[in-house]
Amino acid sequence: MKEECGVAGIILPDDRPQSNAVAFKLYYALYALQHRGQESTGIMVHDGTSPKSIKGMGLVPDVYNKESLGRLIGNAGIGHVRYSTTGGSKIENCQPFVLNFKGGTVAIAHNGNLVNARKLKDELENEGRIFISDSDTEVIGHLLVKELIKHDPIESIKTVMRKLIGSYSLVLFINGAVYAVRDPFGFKPLCFGEVDGGYGIFSESVAIDTLNGTLIRDVRPGEVIVFPGSSFESYQLTAESHPAHCVFEFIYFARPDSIIDGKLVYKVRERIGRELAREYHVDADIISPVPDSGITSAIGYARESGIMYLEGLMKNRYIGRTFILPGQDLRETAVRLKMNAIQDNVKGRRVVLVDDSIVRGTTSRRIIDMVRKAGASEVHARVGSPAIIAPCYLGIDMATRQELIASDKTTKEVEGLINADSLGFLSIEGLMRALECDRNDMCVGCLTGEYPVEIPGEKCRKKQTRLDDFSKTKSSSQAVSSDSL
Amino acid sequence: MKEECGVAGIILPDDRPQSNAVAFKLYYALYALQHRGQESTGIMVHDGTSPKSIKGMGLVPDVYNKESLGRLIGNAGIGHVRYSTTGGSKIENCQPFVLNFKGGTVAIAHNGNLVNARKLKDELENEGRIFISDSDTEVIGHLLVKELIKHDPIESIKTVMRKLIGSYSLVLFINGAVYAVRDPFGFKPLCFGEVDGGYGIFSESVAIDTLNGTLIRDVRPGEVIVFPGSSFESYQLTAESHPAHCVFEFIYFARPDSIIDGKLVYKVRERIGRELAREYHVDADIISPVPDSGITSAIGYARESGIMYLEGLMKNRYIGRTFILPGQDLRETAVRLKMNAIQDNVKGRRVVLVDDSIVRGTTSRRIIDMVRKAGASEVHARVGSPAIIAPCYLGIDMATRQELIASDKTTKEVEGLINADSLGFLSIEGLMRALECDRNDMCVGCLTGEYPVEIPGEKCRKKQTRLDDFSKTKSSSQAVSSDSL
Amino acid sequence: MKEECGVAGIILPDDRPQSNAVAFKLYYALYALQHRGQESTGIMVHDGTSPKSIKGMGLVPDVYNKESLGRLIGNAGIGHVRYSTTGGSKIENCQPFVLNFKGGTVAIAHNGNLVNARKLKDELENEGRIFISDSDTEVIGHLLVKELIKHDPIESIKTVMRKLIGSYSLVLFINGAVYAVRDPFGFKPLCFGEVDGGYGIFSESVAIDTLNGTLIRDVRPGEVIVFPGSSFESYQLTAESHPAHCVFEFIYFARPDSIIDGKLVYKVRERIGRELAREYHVDADIISPVPDSGITSAIGYARESGIMYLEGLMKNRYIGRTFILPGQDLRETAVRLKMNAIQDNVKGRRVVLVDDSIVRGTTSRRIIDMVRKAGASEVHARVGSPAIIAPCYLGIDMATRQELIASDKTTKEVEGLINADSLGFLSIEGLMRALECDRNDMCVGCLTGEYPVEIPGEKCRKKQTRLDDFSKTKSSSQAVSSDSL
Amino acid sequence: MKEECGVAGIILPDDRPQSNAVAFKLYYALYALQHRGQESTGIMVHDGTSPKSIKGMGLVPDVYNKESLGRLIGNAGIGHVRYSTTGGSKIENCQPFVLNFKGGTVAIAHNGNLVNARKLKDELENEGRIFISDSDTEVIGHLLVKELIKHDPIESIKTVMRKLIGSYSLVLFINGAVYAVRDPFGFKPLCFGEVDGGYGIFSESVAIDTLNGTLIRDVRPGEVIVFPGSSFESYQLTAESHPAHCVFEFIYFARPDSIIDGKLVYKVRERIGRELAREYHVDADIISPVPDSGITSAIGYARESGIMYLEGLMKNRYIGRTFILPGQDLRETAVRLKMNAIQDNVKGRRVVLVDDSIVRGTTSRRIIDMVRKAGASEVHARVGSPAIIAPCYLGIDMATRQELIASDKTTKEVEGLINADSLGFLSIEGLMRALECDRNDMCVGCLTGEYPVEIPGEKCRKKQTRLDDFSKTKSSSQAVSSDSL
Repeated sequence: MKEECGVAGIILPDDRPQSNAVAFKLYYALYALQHRGQESTGIMVHDGTSPKSIKGMGLVPDVYNKESLGRLIGNAGIGHVRYSTTGGSKIENCQPFVLNFKGGTVAIAHNGNLVNARKLKDELENEGRIFISDSDTEVIGHLLVKELIKHDPIESIKTVMRKLIGSYSLVLFINGAVYAVRDPFGFKPLCFGEVDGGYGIFSESVAIDTLNGTLIRDVRPGEVIVFPGSSFESYQLTAESHPAHCVFEFIYFARPDSIIDGKLVYKVRERIGRELAREYHVDADIISPVPDSGITSAIGYARESGIMYLEGLMKNRYIGRTFILPGQDLRETAVRLKMNAIQDNVKGRRVVLVDDSIVRGTTSRRIIDMVRKAGASEVHARVGSPAIIAPCYLGIDMATRQELIASDKTTKEVEGLINADSLGFLSIEGLMRALECDRNDMCVGCLTGEYPVEIPGEKCRKKQTRLDDFSKTKSSSQAVSSDSL
Repeated sequence: MKEECGVAGIILPDDRPQSNAVAFKLYYALYALQHRGQESTGIMVHDGTSPKSIKGMGLVPDVYNKESLGRLIGNAGIGHVRYSTTGGSKIENCQPFVLNFKGGTVAIAHNGNLVNARKLKDELENEGRIFISDSDTEVIGHLLVKELIKHDPIESIKTVMRKLIGSYSLVLFINGAVYAVRDPFGFKPLCFGEVDGGYGIFSESVAIDTLNGTLIRDVRPGEVIVFPGSSFESYQLTAESHPAHCVFEFIYFARPDSIIDGKLVYKVRERIGRELAREYHVDADIISPVPDSGITSAIGYARESGIMYLEGLMKNRYIGRTFILPGQDLRETAVRLKMNAIQDNVKGRRVVLVDDSIVRGTTSRRIIDMVRKAGASEVHARVGSPAIIAPCYLGIDMATRQELIASDKTTKEVEGLINADSLGFLSIEGLMRALECDRNDMCVGCLTGEYPVEIPGEKCRKKQTRLDDFSKTKSSSQAVSSDSL
Repeated sequence: MKEECGVAGIILPDDRPQSNAVAFKLYYALYALQHRGQESTGIMVHDGTSPKSIKGMGLVPDVYNKESLGRLIGNAGIGHVRYSTTGGSKIENCQPFVLNFKGGTVAIAHNGNLVNARKLKDELENEGRIFISDSDTEVIGHLLVKELIKHDPIESIKTVMRKLIGSYSLVLFINGAVYAVRDPFGFKPLCFGEVDGGYGIFSESVAIDTLNGTLIRDVRPGEVIVFPGSSFESYQLTAESHPAHCVFEFIYFARPDSIIDGKLVYKVRERIGRELAREYHVDADIISPVPDSGITSAIGYARESGIMYLEGLMKNRYIGRTFILPGQDLRETAVRLKMNAIQDNVKGRRVVLVDDSIVRGTTSRRIIDMVRKAGASEVHARVGSPAIIAPCYLGIDMATRQELIASDKTTKEVEGLINADSLGFLSIEGLMRALECDRNDMCVGCLTGEYPVEIPGEKCRKKQTRLDDFSKTKSSSQAVSSDSL
Repeated sequence: MKEECGVAGIILPDDRPQSNAVAFKLYYALYALQHRGQESTGIMVHDGTSPKSIKGMGLVPDVYNKESLGRLIGNAGIGHVRYSTTGGSKIENCQPFVLNFKGGTVAIAHNGNLVNARKLKDELENEGRIFISDSDTEVIGHLLVKELIKHDPIESIKTVMRKLIGSYSLVLFINGAVYAVRDPFGFKPLCFGEVDGGYGIFSESVAIDTLNGTLIRDVRPGEVIVFPGSSFESYQLTAESHPAHCVFEFIYFARPDSIIDGKLVYKVRERIGRELAREYHVDADIISPVPDSGITSAIGYARESGIMYLEGLMKNRYIGRTFILPGQDLRETAVRLKMNAIQDNVKGRRVVLVDDSIVRGTTSRRIIDMVRKAGASEVHARVGSPAIIAPCYLGIDMATRQELIASDKTTKEVEGLINADSLGFLSIEGLMRALECDRNDMCVGCLTGEYPVEIPGEKCRKKQTRLDDFSKTKSSSQAVSSDSL
């Protein structure tokens, strides 16, 4: 089951009187992270003796209300927003998972996807363990609890990390403390900051901004940080020689105002537009974004090319869940309800449409047709990512290989299918220039079909040396007190 | 956590095309069992490859709708309705539990209460197992799965039953078949019948009536029945020399039109009324029930005593969830909203009020005051159960010992507190005559403080010989085909 | 449009500080009157300067909540519950109507049906007036406002009453005072009582009981009572020589614990049972009600006949809105979900089933079949009302003439259609004996086809003399201070 | 009561079989117009015999569902979305108003505000007329019906228009035909187009785009158009010598992709930005919009000034209804939840923030503080409208004079209050250049305190000659068949 998620954790100093402040802050943080998952959400808060939680299907403002949040007393808590592909849409998969075991309470909020989940689950099932959900996160929970009954939390997390292959940015609550954990490749983002005298750990830094806090830094690949209350300690358990940050967080998934792994997403997207302009020049009259995802790249493209930036399409800000009249013009109405061409801006003009990516290609086709119908003389498509040719196994819900329009077609063929006068996908090199990053330090599996980790039936980009690395760095684990930062 | 529940299971022959018929039938059955639990409900249906389920807080018609039920395709399924004391009211406790494990899928719907749940949970937690809910049912699930990965279902159930102490009427789904399991004492009811060419297992026979089916018989204490589709096989794994059927199912919990352990509940309640009349004669003008629970006993009382049956109180049929104005007359308004005295029927009359039981006594006091205010010259309380002096540990949500008005008071003292002119609790002997049953074959723990099973800090009614019995009967396990019934 | 309704009004002395007490009391009162209408409800409260109101489709506890009611500050208010036949089910028809006009605010809650509504509406439309709803009540509102801009409230109400033909029990709010108005025939019930130092006017006395108030008396046919705060004044504007109280309020519509026009409904129903027993003796083993509506009459029948009262059918207390599986056994499941035969009580027995009335006959047929299937050797139907042969034009939602099973069939024919061994409808004379009332003082239009008022195409039971009577009594209008009662 | 609204009407040829197509099209159209009102919405559809309608509080997708819309059969219908200031938020004010009168059915959807509503209402109330709502629209309804019982629709509308002073763009349904009516000044927008072989009339042309229709033209000031089905006829009843189109529709209210009175809103806003740049040059590093309303003007400002366009603020796309933690930092959290500064884009930079307008100034202050906190070295505010110094009486919900920050302060004072390094309001002349329009042809009442119509206590921009004009043009009323366009 593919899923996209946002995670959050907050702990306030324990000398502070217990209140519902953590619950309300988690609510605001999840609201700021809503774009990472709109299907279900949950918050757990712990007051030192027992956990209290709220979970539900739907958007953040639909699941919580003032009254229910007001009852969540406790100085530490974690939260989650989630989206999943059909099939996984049930209350049992809603996070955080709150697990009671011999040693107390563990709560887990997870963003990512394990590639060895099936194998780990098989092993656990062979021990007779049972699973309530379809989620990888429950696998992590089982592994963690197995260790926690024998070892301390840091040791336990370390042991579990050695078993997990794939992407995982975790916020954990274990018996009074909150933990941040990021996989050795650092696939999915995770950062932390100072919030109201305590600490907050979030998928993206916008949550810290919303809470009027101060970003401290990203959690590093392979790092575990424990937040017992008014301080924090870091354990660099292991890391790959090359990280593998997900390029799609930068291309379209994260909010543009977030800083991920030291890079402002907005800036990356603006440079993507500039690179596109350099790679695929075309004589045109206007540069228009496909709103909202193409806006920043279109600005960059216009600036680099010197061609006028002008919005040829307008988005309806109120489109959420809606239903569509059955019938032949079904999908077209859906697109027009969401987006409208501004005739005067495109009529008789050569238009460059800049979008973040093309997955199935069907929406691109409808948008280009709409711009043509509004009178554009030419429509050139420029795409802020290389062609997606392979599925993602590491936490982005894309599509199957069969559904990906570019998986078995040339750019020319795709150009024809979407009815564009010309089509340009950003090159991987261009993308890396925009990211100011080495290709070996990003995960580009969906663009190349070569993944940083071994996936059955797929190519692996390099010899796996993770376990060896791990042994070597193990001894260098060290606590860094927050004072030394 | 105390809880009351209703369970349901249906399987249709597998030569029948798969449809949503089982889901809809479970919906109707749970509607018929709604009185056993109004807090949450769930249905799981299995189509041979994967389980599909719906769960939610609320009443049966609020949780399901035509569309959602229509998607539950499969020829076997189980369902549950649940009520719990505060604290246990969360979605994680909602049944049925659907457990995925090495060997496939187990789903459990449980009615009852284990007295050794804490101990079993400790043992499981010591093995590193984790728990999502507060429910005993999850303990049973863990134990069952531990066996199922090594043994066949019947052997596994047998082993688990040896470990469980307490009450449990279970409907299980294990890999394509439905199972009915009842504890060796037969505390909580469970019966099965023919439904639409297949089988249905339910807490009460009214569910069979609602589905236009035919009651076959009760599941026997200690019996396991497997329903693979168009037939069934019985395994009499173990049974106590004396069963311990819960008297309160007959006194107030079950629907009067249900047949439980061969007895029509309505008849038992009518005889309770007759016994009460014999034990506590009083010169009076009318016999009135406290509606609805006292109706049948009041009819019996009136018939035996020859005094006129006349309703002195009327119930508002629309009272469900409501909220009450804060203030001094808070609880009185709540009682008046629910019930109203019929002045003309009680004015100047000596009234015998027949109720099923007295727990805390506060409602009794308010009702008697209401009848007095309406002009009754005398109010005599007659109670269709002996005084409740001890808590229930086996599945009825009563109250703590401190809350039970009769736990430390004489009948005379209670009479004064509820403001009755006279008060009569049915004797245990009278109750047994009404039940046409031997005292040793019923659980009367709440009436005597002696329980059929060992409970820390409480008296046990007899030397426990369960395990020995069990060993002896183990060899006599046998399959009885449905043809031989 | 046919509709059934309940009305309520409360006013507290104006020396009392303004609070939301009236709003909450109206809420409880409407809860007690919920049986009179389950489709929509509204409350308006006035604080001396402006009206505040809540309206909505649904049951009382679904439309209001603590927060919304808490905002309704004011010492006077009125409320309404409503049911209508399909077509009238829209928010515009939800009462009370709150009308703003030159002279201030009028609010109207109406129970009843005007037979000259169309004519009055035509006249008003000819003056160019507009109508928002389909409701007769809006017609009354227009007529009333036309007078109020020229005359004082009592004079205005008097003039309007002269124009209205049909049934109307009204609770009005006009500029600070509450008014109770009942049509000259007194078709629909209306009573008032002392409530918390002020006054409450309600369709039925159970609302007064619920508010812990004291019933003062019924509003008399043709009476107008004004409640300015801590006192009241009566104006006997006009009355027919013979009232025409609706028999069906007593037969099935009102709550049994209500006192209507001086008669306890419960007692009337019990006597109906006795009369039935006298008119239609049959050798039988048990007398069973069709629950809940037949209970009281069955008790009376059993008492008179000496045959044992025993419930052969049990009702599911949780049946509210539900949905039914499409298919052939559609309606049967609906009936079984609602009601279940108690096999042991009816098996091999000759059963007399007592019900309140038969309208279409389809449900009767299904219930009798159910009792037969449960093993009854004979099923005799006894009906607590005469055969309904004509529609109601005065406020009870029955059916069209075509739908009424008895409109064109003999009792023998109906007996066959419902599959009864014998069938007895109470005679009109028997009904009058049970009511202890003269046939000329009740409305029996649906039983005879002769109505107290002229209805186009129907017979009128007597020469209409209303307007003359009216002229004569007009001069005798007098105020009776509450002290003189 | 101030309110903002969107109106819609659709009629299909009557030779087309009746279906729910009009209802679904109205649903999509209202979705496209949702920005004009988010508080309540309604749709009425007429099938030739009777109207059917749905109304409710909330957003378009919350009020309607597939099932309820599916039942609205009819080839003509109208719809409405509405926002009002507190007090008017009740179901009775929800439009369209559906009025039944002598001559049939009138339904009205109104956008605008009458300045003589009180006077007209007084006159109507003096005739004894009653009002259900607080809305001006009901006044129009009464006036219209008064005429319709004597005259034909066009004559009636003409007579009513002579009485109305203020703004009104109306979509009417009268007995089978749909009418578009716009006040003689053309304050609020209204246009129509071809939709699926019939016609659609809407507040903005985006609704036509969404329905894949073709814009025909704006309804002209003082024009009435009747749409009987497959054609239309225009009556130019009257018009002012100078229209008075609302400038705020262009400045911020309408969607940028709408064409209003022949002008693309997007282009006007872009030119506003250019004019601002010319009027208030400042040496700066980046031009940033306040999203979303300032985006287009910021693009224009950047283009004209040559300074880099860079987004310094990012908006959370998911912010809808939310609730805020009570406490001191209440409003700040609300602003941060909605908007976030992009630190890297503003740090150390001189930022020009372009917004559409400043009303109270409190949000501006918070946003500027946020940008400063993110590190901007200077923050210059540029506002795409002149200072608002007086209230709007003609349909925009602004604020009272006391609340308007600029009503009694100099630009310098406002600059200080919002903490800007410099502040520039667009001049009225600049605005007119951007609009390419004469100042005498726009309503600029809120910017000058001089209104096109007489408002008690306010100045009027010219001698009123409306009635004379009206007499003169009356004779020239003529029907223009659609063929001649």
